[in-house]
Amino acid sequence: MSDKPIRIGIVTVSDRASRGEYEDLGGPAICDWLNQALLSPWEAVTRIIPDEQPLIEAALVELCDTLGCCLVVTTGGTGPAPRDITPEATAAVCEKILDGFGEQMRAVSLRFVPTAILSRQIAGIRGHSLMINLPGKPKAIGECLDAVFPAVPYCIDLIDGPYLETRPDVVKAFRPKS
Amino acid sequence: MSDKPIRIGIVTVSDRASRGEYEDLGGPAICDWLNQALLSPWEAVTRIIPDEQPLIEAALVELCDTLGCCLVVTTGGTGPAPRDITPEATAAVCEKILDGFGEQMRAVSLRFVPTAILSRQIAGIRGHSLMINLPGKPKAIGECLDAVFPAVPYCIDLIDGPYLETRPDVVKAFRPKS
Amino acid sequence: MSDKPIRIGIVTVSDRASRGEYEDLGGPAICDWLNQALLSPWEAVTRIIPDEQPLIEAALVELCDTLGCCLVVTTGGTGPAPRDITPEATAAVCEKILDGFGEQMRAVSLRFVPTAILSRQIAGIRGHSLMINLPGKPKAIGECLDAVFPAVPYCIDLIDGPYLETRPDVVKAFRPKS
Repeated sequence: MSDKPIRIGIVTVSDRASRGEYEDLGGPAICDWLNQALLSPWEAVTRIIPDEQPLIEAALVELCDTLGCCLVVTTGGTGPAPRDITPEATAAVCEKILDGFGEQMRAVSLRFVPTAILSRQIAGIRGHSLMINLPGKPKAIGECLDAVFPAVPYCIDLIDGPYLETRPDVVKAFRPKS
Repeated sequence: MSDKPIRIGIVTVSDRASRGEYEDLGGPAICDWLNQALLSPWEAVTRIIPDEQPLIEAALVELCDTLGCCLVVTTGGTGPAPRDITPEATAAVCEKILDGFGEQMRAVSLRFVPTAILSRQIAGIRGHSLMINLPGKPKAIGECLDAVFPAVPYCIDLIDGPYLETRPDVVKAFRPKS
Repeated sequence: MSDKPIRIGIVTVSDRASRGEYEDLGGPAICDWLNQALLSPWEAVTRIIPDEQPLIEAALVELCDTLGCCLVVTTGGTGPAPRDITPEATAAVCEKILDGFGEQMRAVSLRFVPTAILSRQIAGIRGHSLMINLPGKPKAIGECLDAVFPAVPYCIDLIDGPYLETRPDVVKAFRPKS
């Protein structure tokens, strides 16, 4: 393990936020959540991208392949509206899709709002990186991260990424004894 | 908003019903459910189609693109049997698949029968139309519509369809404040 | 119904087990579970295969098409690691995917471990055969089979396979009255 901080990509996908017409709330909400949850030293690499599939794909690839992020989370663009294209961009650059993330995030969001079934958020693997789509709203971001993050450190172990440590009072990372 | 009634397509997929060997129970069950749930004026456009993928696709496309249905629901043809092909036909004419619908409908049906996991029902978007596959049995149709319909009016808003109003004592349509 | 015993394929997917470096625990666990659950006479056809997609596909096709197994269960190779390729091999040789199996198996495993969302296990149909991916660990295998097996005999009925009878005190097979 190197002593460089762990890099995590945070990608806000939003036409309006990318033009500066709208304050990005999702990206900072993810950053705050990770600051509270992670014990390992880490640094955020942030991007704000319009809802254009080639641009989202290029950002995800750069964060994984060039900048070495072991985890890339997106916010926004997962609904049924015509411009919502984040899951398609994510799927296009992943080698494996992990359906359990989307299922669990929707199941958890469904406890709060019946429109959770409209979210098409997915997660997948590209090389040594795990990508997770999150919703756009800060409250829903926290609910989803709370639900799936216990499985994230072990997933990153399995794809030969860095060893992530969490604050056990915030997130209990689970690593099965194999 | 125009004063024309909202159009909803109801497609029964069944070899036997399309040959008149079997009374269509699914289509009328959907119609009854919608009559009780919807406050907005609406009209049904009904079709009975055999389990042939090109014919199902053609009916779905006509209902969405030519007849302007904002919602198209199907009944039948979602199981594992060789002739069951409704989800494939639906996926072939949709631009986006909304996995949350199928997940939630199976989760709800699973409370009643363990064979709910055999249903391959999906939902998706084509242009300004939402398509939802429902099971064949009237009882299961009602259970599935009860479960997913609270999210349907907002979904149709997001794809620039008409404003659907439901009877709140039957279905509580949920529209998040954005 | 012929008086030949029902054939069930049991495929262990593991580089190490296929080289004999590691005792196969998954295959025998499946065999034991089926011995307890099935009342119908049956015989196991077992294979131990490395994590190579073409070899897994060839084994699945042989078990279904040549050896006439009505059910083929796999163990191992469903995670996010680079060598995990069982679901891809399964999908490649199936005509229909039954998403409900994976959803329910993950939902059940999630009651025990949060890393259940990392499993990409699927089920699908090839001709007259049902294939189900199971996890690698014997305990998780039992949990998954307990959850989905009540739907398996009816599924095999629907694809014109043999009539499977289970011991009702172990697994309550459910066949809807149609």
